[in-house]
Amino acid sequence: MKKILLCELNMSEGTDVAAIEKVTAALRGTPGVTVMDVDSDKDHNRTVYTWIGEPEDVLAGAQNLTEKALEIIDMSRHHGSHPRMGAVDVVPFVPVRGVEKEEALEIARRYGAFLGSKGVPVYYYEEAATKPSRQNLVDLRKGQYEALEKKMKDEAWRPDEGPFAFVPRWGATVTGVRFPLVAYNVNLRTTDVEIAKAIAKRMRFSTGGLRFVRAIGLPLEEKGMVQVSMNLTNYEKTPIPVAYDLIRSLAATYGVTVAEAELVGPVPLAALEDVVRHCLQVHRFEASQIIETHLLG
Amino acid sequence: MKKILLCELNMSEGTDVAAIEKVTAALRGTPGVTVMDVDSDKDHNRTVYTWIGEPEDVLAGAQNLTEKALEIIDMSRHHGSHPRMGAVDVVPFVPVRGVEKEEALEIARRYGAFLGSKGVPVYYYEEAATKPSRQNLVDLRKGQYEALEKKMKDEAWRPDEGPFAFVPRWGATVTGVRFPLVAYNVNLRTTDVEIAKAIAKRMRFSTGGLRFVRAIGLPLEEKGMVQVSMNLTNYEKTPIPVAYDLIRSLAATYGVTVAEAELVGPVPLAALEDVVRHCLQVHRFEASQIIETHLLG
Repeated sequence: MKKILLCELNMSEGTDVAAIEKVTAALRGTPGVTVMDVDSDKDHNRTVYTWIGEPEDVLAGAQNLTEKALEIIDMSRHHGSHPRMGAVDVVPFVPVRGVEKEEALEIARRYGAFLGSKGVPVYYYEEAATKPSRQNLVDLRKGQYEALEKKMKDEAWRPDEGPFAFVPRWGATVTGVRFPLVAYNVNLRTTDVEIAKAIAKRMRFSTGGLRFVRAIGLPLEEKGMVQVSMNLTNYEKTPIPVAYDLIRSLAATYGVTVAEAELVGPVPLAALEDVVRHCLQVHRFEASQIIETHLLG
Repeated sequence: MKKILLCELNMSEGTDVAAIEKVTAALRGTPGVTVMDVDSDKDHNRTVYTWIGEPEDVLAGAQNLTEKALEIIDMSRHHGSHPRMGAVDVVPFVPVRGVEKEEALEIARRYGAFLGSKGVPVYYYEEAATKPSRQNLVDLRKGQYEALEKKMKDEAWRPDEGPFAFVPRWGATVTGVRFPLVAYNVNLRTTDVEIAKAIAKRMRFSTGGLRFVRAIGLPLEEKGMVQVSMNLTNYEKTPIPVAYDLIRSLAATYGVTVAEAELVGPVPLAALEDVVRHCLQVHRFEASQIIETHLLG
């Protein structure tokens, strides 16, 4: 089976349709690239591209797209409601199937070096971070584009690639490797949001829960329910059905049942294979048993 | 997403490696065909080919394979331990994804007409059967190849395609359409095979159970367990997790637990999507959320 790497590139242009189409064409014209989604948001003034393919093809797609994006965007004139600090703002590479972390890191670093060679300051984040203070996007992007000029005078903000200087036209780019994130929301048959908050607290890593779960409790007023909204940051080590079983048993301690749940956005097939293993007790289930996997090359 | 049809062709030659390779090459040389498995068994003197692709390509593969098989096989000299009555013995077409029953039936009928035009008597079975007595393979193949000469003198055995005559070299072929069969075995933590038999009886359609379940109870002496061995003949209408839940609750009435289970052989992705919907309560899960499905064209 072929390797699958995913790239999700966040570009700071979401309004100029003709310009966006030029960038999209550069991505689509890259051999071996399958574009999953192109999502432009006018209020955010931002477009999120998602594509998959073999690692080298995905890198080529990122480079082709980026060359066009750097031509059309001038950050000194950019306004939008979404936090951003660069023309090419954030570019995570995500291993989906058969790609080791090291291989994905090499792709991210080659992409970073490419951007640097074009004159764009680059910070590596998540699995590619060169120091702990650069792991989180939120920390890196603090103050956004507007703070970059000042930051670039501080040695702590020396970029990992590219010039140690404020580049008004392009700002700075954050790139790196992260694992696939599974967004799993579980709705409970109660209107008491305190129950959702208490369960979220027990579920999430930061307050004693499962190692790879982030969770918050929310009201869902229209539905007359509450929601435990979760991000599973490593579905191999904390599988979706493990989170489901725990949430259901925590809910039971409040006499509350699970009404429904949703998986939001894309999920790797491997995460679903674990659902089969866990929920049907088929411990030795293999991906090659799924007929469609034979068409993946 | 492209349509996927599967064909499983059972050929009465499993010993002559050079001859088998010629037949295999004819299948593999067909554009658009993905060969999943080629399984030759010397004792059976039989080879089972499994391939997938778009309906027209799958049909072309069947025709190319069949032409070669008819060249190399002489049934008047065939011996093997597996029941058989033709050089090309049984050819089910199985809709896997996006293929309606009518479309699969048309493919099976075109394949049957092709075989008939080559001079092979053909019987349609399962969903393609022209009368109830021809639905089951076991009924059609009763007496095997050796009974064909006599059968061909009886009007009841007039074939659906091809000559109404005994053809010593090729016997007769059974073809048609069946739904994907999911083989699901559940092992129970007891050595009492009567419990497995009682549960199988409650599970299977023929004795009051689920509409699309066939089941038997077996001892698994080496493991010190018993097994409820099931075939799910329509995973859309009787999903795997529904069978699992029922079997687990029936076992509980004997104070017995499920030790492990296995899915044997290929499974359509759609059957696994139902596992996600059922087991994680994600009722609105869509196949397009699975990243890999974007590579299926």
